[in-house]
Amino acid sequence: MDFNSKLRNVTDGKIGLCIGLDPVLDRLPETIRTSREPLYAFNSEIIEHTHDIAAAYKPNLAFYEALGDEGWRQLEKTVQAVPDKCLVIADGKRGDIGSTAAAYALSLFDRLDVDAATVNPYLGADALLPFLERVDHGAFVLAVTSNPGGADLQELVCEGEPLFRHVIRMARRLNGSGNVGLVVGATRPTLWRDVMDVAVDLPLLVPGIGAQGGDLGLLKSALRDYPAPTLVNASRSIIYASSGADFGRAAREAALNLADKLRE
Amino acid sequence: MDFNSKLRNVTDGKIGLCIGLDPVLDRLPETIRTSREPLYAFNSEIIEHTHDIAAAYKPNLAFYEALGDEGWRQLEKTVQAVPDKCLVIADGKRGDIGSTAAAYALSLFDRLDVDAATVNPYLGADALLPFLERVDHGAFVLAVTSNPGGADLQELVCEGEPLFRHVIRMARRLNGSGNVGLVVGATRPTLWRDVMDVAVDLPLLVPGIGAQGGDLGLLKSALRDYPAPTLVNASRSIIYASSGADFGRAAREAALNLADKLRE
Repeated sequence: MDFNSKLRNVTDGKIGLCIGLDPVLDRLPETIRTSREPLYAFNSEIIEHTHDIAAAYKPNLAFYEALGDEGWRQLEKTVQAVPDKCLVIADGKRGDIGSTAAAYALSLFDRLDVDAATVNPYLGADALLPFLERVDHGAFVLAVTSNPGGADLQELVCEGEPLFRHVIRMARRLNGSGNVGLVVGATRPTLWRDVMDVAVDLPLLVPGIGAQGGDLGLLKSALRDYPAPTLVNASRSIIYASSGADFGRAAREAALNLADKLRE
Repeated sequence: MDFNSKLRNVTDGKIGLCIGLDPVLDRLPETIRTSREPLYAFNSEIIEHTHDIAAAYKPNLAFYEALGDEGWRQLEKTVQAVPDKCLVIADGKRGDIGSTAAAYALSLFDRLDVDAATVNPYLGADALLPFLERVDHGAFVLAVTSNPGGADLQELVCEGEPLFRHVIRMARRLNGSGNVGLVVGATRPTLWRDVMDVAVDLPLLVPGIGAQGGDLGLLKSALRDYPAPTLVNASRSIIYASSGADFGRAAREAALNLADKLRE
């Protein structure tokens, strides 16, 4: 099945919840932190409690690499723990020259076996192609990021319009197989019109709701007439909803709550 | 020792050779490919034959991640095999929001224990800070990359000058601790004046010589009066100098040859 169809399935063509699996050892409940595979133990319980609510899971690779090869092993087990009916997006924001990007695509799509990846546009089109040649897999190109410094380069006006609009146009040109999406942070709502205007119908992955403080109401009103499926991601506000042994159930409550608001 | 001093030591303040450790399983000699730890076996022999010539080694993380956790384990062993007198630069081109960038810095500087990393500027200044707060470690910011698509965004004219010059200015503003460098590809020599003009005295890491076809003569004449230490990287032209069992000695020959040309 091509990636766009997978994405439409899990979101019903509308807004789906994506849960960010970004476990930091120090923040895990005592019993989990001292277990043999803490990241995996934590994630598998989160997944167990939320897989009927989530459209997708998004592990950010940094939090696994912080534990080196052992972290990678637990990442691989985490991906395998996600039921087939949910997508997995490897959030690594990779970007390198063509031959190297091909190695990253191999790493993520074959070895790790995820459905999609986030990619960085700074190296241009040929650096993105190795990801996009895999039509059954998706690539979400960073356009507008959710951090304060996102504006430093992304909002520079280049040849008549902000850089992020050039990025979005590039992403659209590369969308021959319908497997390109965009990362657009919820924390910069004033840019939403400018994004959607050029994104037209590219699927969106939206971080920044929850701990980062993005306004869900503004996001939903911006998305009202947007025709493409959108994944809204929350990480810390769900996975750390409780710091105690009941973190799985608390994550479920937080996920249900956010999913309801997305559907309303 | 702060990073800038380390870099001056290994380059003698001038141009040093950096060897890219980018092993692809299919390209390794038969006897190595079938060994239990092929990437590490290959790298350790390359290092053994070249450590008296190289100022630095630069493993590109993609080629290890292509083997998942097992690749990471061999990457960790590779880093440990480099003698202290040479620098190790983790080439992962990472870039993410602050809290995540901090996890990457932990992964690379503490867990993997390398001296420096390459970082992607698209997310802006706050995404680079977690790397730069570690004054004993360096961060090389992508400015001009060596691939054909590098021009797609990097040469867009933004508010009067090409994007890569904005990136370089941002890198300079962040150089309070003297541990910021730039990645500037050797394949785009027409941009060198424009780069150095704003880089002023930031150290450079220059890929694109060798298999990618960058012209060494043009590079050297551009660097003639440049006051900062520069690492010139070659990967495939050195590590694959022979496809046979004599690859270590052949790599040494290729490395000596290039080091001589850099010194001339």
